[in-house]
Amino acid sequence: MKYSHIVSYSLLVLCILFGTLSAAAQQNLWQKRSVISPEISADGSVTLRLYAPAAEEVVLNGDFAPGGKSGQMAMTRSDEGVWEYRSEPLASELYCYWFSVDGIDHVVDPSNSYVMRDVGSQMNYFIIPGERGDLYASQRVPHGTLARVWAEVNDGRERRMTIYTPSDYESSKRRYPVLYLLHGMGGDEEAWVATGRVVEILDNLIAQGKAEPMIVVMTNGCTKHVSAPGYSHEGMWVPYMSGSMDGSFEAMFPSIVEWVDSNYRTIRKPQSRAIAGLSMGGFHSMQISKEYPTMFDYVGLFSAAIFRGQEGVAAYQDLEAKLERQFANDVALYWIAIGSEDFLYEENVKYRALLDQKGYKYEYRETGDGHVWRNWRIYISEFAQMLFKKSK
Amino acid sequence: MKYSHIVSYSLLVLCILFGTLSAAAQQNLWQKRSVISPEISADGSVTLRLYAPAAEEVVLNGDFAPGGKSGQMAMTRSDEGVWEYRSEPLASELYCYWFSVDGIDHVVDPSNSYVMRDVGSQMNYFIIPGERGDLYASQRVPHGTLARVWAEVNDGRERRMTIYTPSDYESSKRRYPVLYLLHGMGGDEEAWVATGRVVEILDNLIAQGKAEPMIVVMTNGCTKHVSAPGYSHEGMWVPYMSGSMDGSFEAMFPSIVEWVDSNYRTIRKPQSRAIAGLSMGGFHSMQISKEYPTMFDYVGLFSAAIFRGQEGVAAYQDLEAKLERQFANDVALYWIAIGSEDFLYEENVKYRALLDQKGYKYEYRETGDGHVWRNWRIYISEFAQMLFKKSK
Repeated sequence: MKYSHIVSYSLLVLCILFGTLSAAAQQNLWQKRSVISPEISADGSVTLRLYAPAAEEVVLNGDFAPGGKSGQMAMTRSDEGVWEYRSEPLASELYCYWFSVDGIDHVVDPSNSYVMRDVGSQMNYFIIPGERGDLYASQRVPHGTLARVWAEVNDGRERRMTIYTPSDYESSKRRYPVLYLLHGMGGDEEAWVATGRVVEILDNLIAQGKAEPMIVVMTNGCTKHVSAPGYSHEGMWVPYMSGSMDGSFEAMFPSIVEWVDSNYRTIRKPQSRAIAGLSMGGFHSMQISKEYPTMFDYVGLFSAAIFRGQEGVAAYQDLEAKLERQFANDVALYWIAIGSEDFLYEENVKYRALLDQKGYKYEYRETGDGHVWRNWRIYISEFAQMLFKKSK
Repeated sequence: MKYSHIVSYSLLVLCILFGTLSAAAQQNLWQKRSVISPEISADGSVTLRLYAPAAEEVVLNGDFAPGGKSGQMAMTRSDEGVWEYRSEPLASELYCYWFSVDGIDHVVDPSNSYVMRDVGSQMNYFIIPGERGDLYASQRVPHGTLARVWAEVNDGRERRMTIYTPSDYESSKRRYPVLYLLHGMGGDEEAWVATGRVVEILDNLIAQGKAEPMIVVMTNGCTKHVSAPGYSHEGMWVPYMSGSMDGSFEAMFPSIVEWVDSNYRTIRKPQSRAIAGLSMGGFHSMQISKEYPTMFDYVGLFSAAIFRGQEGVAAYQDLEAKLERQFANDVALYWIAIGSEDFLYEENVKYRALLDQKGYKYEYRETGDGHVWRNWRIYISEFAQMLFKKSK
């Protein structure tokens, strides 16, 4: 740990600009930046630091522990009271972390302004440049628009959605295909943007000519809430692992598609509609695409919670007959992806066996790792490139 | 501290839903929620808690210290290792806070999912219901759309803006007035949304009939960056107290207005255009409105850094002659607001003396407090209600 890592940008700049420190510092500054963290080296290693002079033990939690796994990593203390961890060179990726300090489970790195929320937790992140990291980072390419909109659906409630339109949407008059992209349990209409990096991925893939320009509609699939926490009259509730596997989201979906088709320049045909989701969103994608078999020609099940629907719900009954009806329509792409260590792996094996037995055509992608966002970013990156390109 | 405050929502719900804890917990959960914080009581007091069993001292930093000021508040430790602070009943407001733990300056509350970024720092917030708090919180009213867009301006670069359109924008064909709302030094196109609560304030005021439905355009006034940190090819730089007081933003502004007028259904007349900003944004509003004296009939200077422009810049010269030209156009509203303890108070006194001496009509609003967001939320709430209602 070199002393040069101890800096104080904000105070210094303020001081120069306003010629005074005390008043401005008191009023403007909520934090003194005391160490550099993260520091990414040219070899792809990262150094993380926390100034915690009185701590007995500081532990790093992240998804870049040796072996490429999630886990805890020991930190070492310098004489100045700065705890430090330096990784091995890491594969290009977006990585998340936080600290634990003497029994405080979850300390966000005060030196790193980049934070994302997953369900109820804030965590820091950093990106190691390279093929995958660059795909997840904003580049010098034309950027699409991201809008938070409200739509009244068939239950009479206004519900919030996040909608990505590609960079040429405003300047053109053309119509676009639509991907409906669904979150998992505990998630909401912010999840694919914040943690899934959908804006960066789509901007980059479209600019590279690898994905068709498309609209991406990110709904809230927890029907008892109309929005992500804090954005509606429901107030500042504590986010938790909530979801809807009771048929309510499936019943609502056609009115969402209708609203999107009425408010955006969409191509209103099944061959220009895709639905995909992760975990509970994969379950929803499976259920919705078979309930409305002529709505979507492209279906993506990412680490899908295939057999978790609430019992006794009509929408979840007669699976085989409904699948038969769906696959009779010659689905352009039915894509199943899961990590080999996912706790839902076995039910995906079982579901694929059912599809195999019936002779239904699907594509299968297996990665390493478990039920984690790293996989879902890979899946959306690959799935987006296959959309709206196949002829039936 | 009652033991009932120690809960673990996420684990419990997951456990029930998936029938298993260990695998899902390893893969899905990034944090165990161990205490309730904040807890808001019916009398408007708040209790904040941090589980820090080994800490010698935990201090609360917030803008609700006794006397209604920003400051540090001592916390007390329970036998279970939970540090707690209970406030007196607080006035209805949005309040911010973080913890300091044994020399770690800035610990975000791990039990509170609500976090906002101001410049480079993350801080928690909570809202005490009532008149002002309710205005800053999302209510059961029609909601406008918030879009992050990219616009190519006259320096040939695509720049990111945040644009609010009122709830009836999509369903109507009408044209709307536009408020250009500018951030302060260290801020960006996210500041007025995240910390200024503009979406909630406008949604609520418009629903109450207190503000005209309007478009709000939030630019990035730090011209060396094209976006807030992390959203452009400039990468994940460390936010700092940066700004542009060199004439570059003023030179760019007409092309921003032109882009907005070309891409939104705006009323393209000065009586339907307003410009306002805080601190450096107040400076920009003053400069831009006088550089282009027929562009804006409504001007708001919130805690404005009036006399801080870089020396030798043509745009900042001949102030008196330019003001004369501006006020010859019969400005509908020239509104100056500042806190009595603001470090920019004296230069606002000096500026008002100049306007008084020339006989230029303006309105003046003085609040308590200093150079803080609490004031800027008040100012935008009041300013928005005066817009586009005056006849010249």
